[in-house]
Amino acid sequence: METIKLEKINRVLLVTFNAPNRHNPFSQLMMQELSGKLRQADSDQSVGSVVLYGGKGRSFSVGADFNEVSTFTGGDEVDVWLDNALNLYLSVIELKKPIVAAIDGYAIGAGLQLALMCDYRIGTTNCKLSMPELELGVACSFGTFILSHVVGRATMQELVFGCQKLDAKRARETGILHEVIDSELLLEYALDLGTRFASYSPTAVQSTKPQSNATFIAGLHEVFESAKLAHRCSFSKGVAQQKMAAIVGRLTPTKEEKLHKS
Amino acid sequence: METIKLEKINRVLLVTFNAPNRHNPFSQLMMQELSGKLRQADSDQSVGSVVLYGGKGRSFSVGADFNEVSTFTGGDEVDVWLDNALNLYLSVIELKKPIVAAIDGYAIGAGLQLALMCDYRIGTTNCKLSMPELELGVACSFGTFILSHVVGRATMQELVFGCQKLDAKRARETGILHEVIDSELLLEYALDLGTRFASYSPTAVQSTKPQSNATFIAGLHEVFESAKLAHRCSFSKGVAQQKMAAIVGRLTPTKEEKLHKS
Amino acid sequence: METIKLEKINRVLLVTFNAPNRHNPFSQLMMQELSGKLRQADSDQSVGSVVLYGGKGRSFSVGADFNEVSTFTGGDEVDVWLDNALNLYLSVIELKKPIVAAIDGYAIGAGLQLALMCDYRIGTTNCKLSMPELELGVACSFGTFILSHVVGRATMQELVFGCQKLDAKRARETGILHEVIDSELLLEYALDLGTRFASYSPTAVQSTKPQSNATFIAGLHEVFESAKLAHRCSFSKGVAQQKMAAIVGRLTPTKEEKLHKS
Repeated sequence: METIKLEKINRVLLVTFNAPNRHNPFSQLMMQELSGKLRQADSDQSVGSVVLYGGKGRSFSVGADFNEVSTFTGGDEVDVWLDNALNLYLSVIELKKPIVAAIDGYAIGAGLQLALMCDYRIGTTNCKLSMPELELGVACSFGTFILSHVVGRATMQELVFGCQKLDAKRARETGILHEVIDSELLLEYALDLGTRFASYSPTAVQSTKPQSNATFIAGLHEVFESAKLAHRCSFSKGVAQQKMAAIVGRLTPTKEEKLHKS
Repeated sequence: METIKLEKINRVLLVTFNAPNRHNPFSQLMMQELSGKLRQADSDQSVGSVVLYGGKGRSFSVGADFNEVSTFTGGDEVDVWLDNALNLYLSVIELKKPIVAAIDGYAIGAGLQLALMCDYRIGTTNCKLSMPELELGVACSFGTFILSHVVGRATMQELVFGCQKLDAKRARETGILHEVIDSELLLEYALDLGTRFASYSPTAVQSTKPQSNATFIAGLHEVFESAKLAHRCSFSKGVAQQKMAAIVGRLTPTKEEKLHKS
Repeated sequence: METIKLEKINRVLLVTFNAPNRHNPFSQLMMQELSGKLRQADSDQSVGSVVLYGGKGRSFSVGADFNEVSTFTGGDEVDVWLDNALNLYLSVIELKKPIVAAIDGYAIGAGLQLALMCDYRIGTTNCKLSMPELELGVACSFGTFILSHVVGRATMQELVFGCQKLDAKRARETGILHEVIDSELLLEYALDLGTRFASYSPTAVQSTKPQSNATFIAGLHEVFESAKLAHRCSFSKGVAQQKMAAIVGRLTPTKEEKLHKS
């Protein structure tokens, strides 16, 4: 089964995350596949805009797949993971076309970071956003930079130090979400938005995005360098791996989730 | 008839935009005149503060005069326009005195950008703010930079990609407006504010503004360089001009506007 | 009597400001003492997190002690004061452990700036925050930079040019405060928060903070250089000193404050 599903509706490319787990943890293979598809979409003239989506009744993404990350020991595998993350983020921020994140359920860690790369974010009334790295015992390198750049330092602190889980209302107040909508209407609304964005003159969009993203992109590259050292260090202690292993347990569907799913 | 009217009330210089059209589109001549007046006010010891105002029953400014801009073909005339815009913005941001934007009606595009150069912005309950460049088919160079710098990237995205028209309430939430007031009280309140700002010690203000504006000014110069290329490119396609020509039709007073005016 | 009281509750270091005046104006001696204690705490393995607090029924801090500052004449003493302020700010922002500001009463000028150096800020329902430098006739150098960096330029303008006194609700909206709580519960809640923050993996925190604070720290050093000139200039005029002398009178407890105190 493919981890990324593509569908073109008019000129909107709908990219649906399709990890085996309904909360869409990102394996590295999935991250590579996703960035590859986005690079292809960028040079495909028939694509006018892109919508990222977690699938019906599923989360946008809970971030890194802890089954993978909890095996890290602080060596080269950390750099490889960060490489995959950076490439994924760059494939979104360097996309020449407007790109929308359509968020239901959870957007956590790298999942939230991916959404923050997009030009526009809509979430459902029952979405939950968080950046729990410090609670997990992991350095929060990309997270602090990305949140500070997109919604400012104070909101970064709320998420990263407070380890607050934001509901839709609070996420809207911070600016992380641009619009909030009912879960049943999310996909339809996201596609409408994508259609509107696809109607913008490509020349105008392509003359606007690179300049308005230049410092963001430069910052990501800079963070990447310090992140390698930081993450090697935090993973070499073993604390994070234990906490992640415990979390992996929690991500298996609860009774309530199974009901919600059926 | 002059496009810029000046009046000095106590130590407050009231600068009223007076374009023939009540929505105050900025012709290049008007932009030059305005920046000239502001440079003069800066060296006039009798001026303690400045208030920018669109006039009673008129808009602050809908930005560039589409009658001019819709004739652009992507050549040197684009650079000249951007030069005039940059000079105008610099004449506001480099002003040594506190400067207030008093916004009624529309503040759109370059009109909103001008307001964002000011130290303080008040708007009426029925003002509307927007940055519709992408919908018009024009690159949004100054707009993305200025909005990101003043109110952050997420709010920039809401305006530039969402092409959302903000009402007073939302503009207040984003921080674009510092205060909201009834239309009838706008001028009086703006002058009161100007009087209070004019009472600040000039030494304190002049020791504060240059440092707190330095990165903003440097950024404007940087954007200017990439904007020249971006705008030449977007105007050479002809899309924007068509859309603008259509808009110019819409800006002629409607029946309702004529009633409101009389 | 010591101006800084230390108490260790579990792994949380509670730092209570204890100036003779209940609004905690910072004398230079107090600033030096505070930064010294924080540097010590940083290398003390038994300290997991720090809480800054103004004391029960007292203000967090009204900033510079005007009894000292009102004697300035614009010479070397200005540089010495700024040196003490910079060292204090750096001792907070360079702290390797999470640090919380627990704000009751006033947080004004340098007091508010100190709070803005922290990783997390909680305030009581009756706290008041302001940055009144321009009204006092003093250059606002650190203030404009710090507010812009933490909560953005628009909110900086609201405080610095508008000289608005923010109540808890507005301070929460701007992001200056991360949480608002009843005055009676402040200390207990701050210690709970400190305990939670102390439980974060030190490696994760220490791998996160330096990178996420690097541009902030670089900016503080840069502002320091221009601030020296700006403050020498504004103090050489004598306006600020007069206004401060008048304020010192106002800070003696009013009848209402005495009642509240008893």
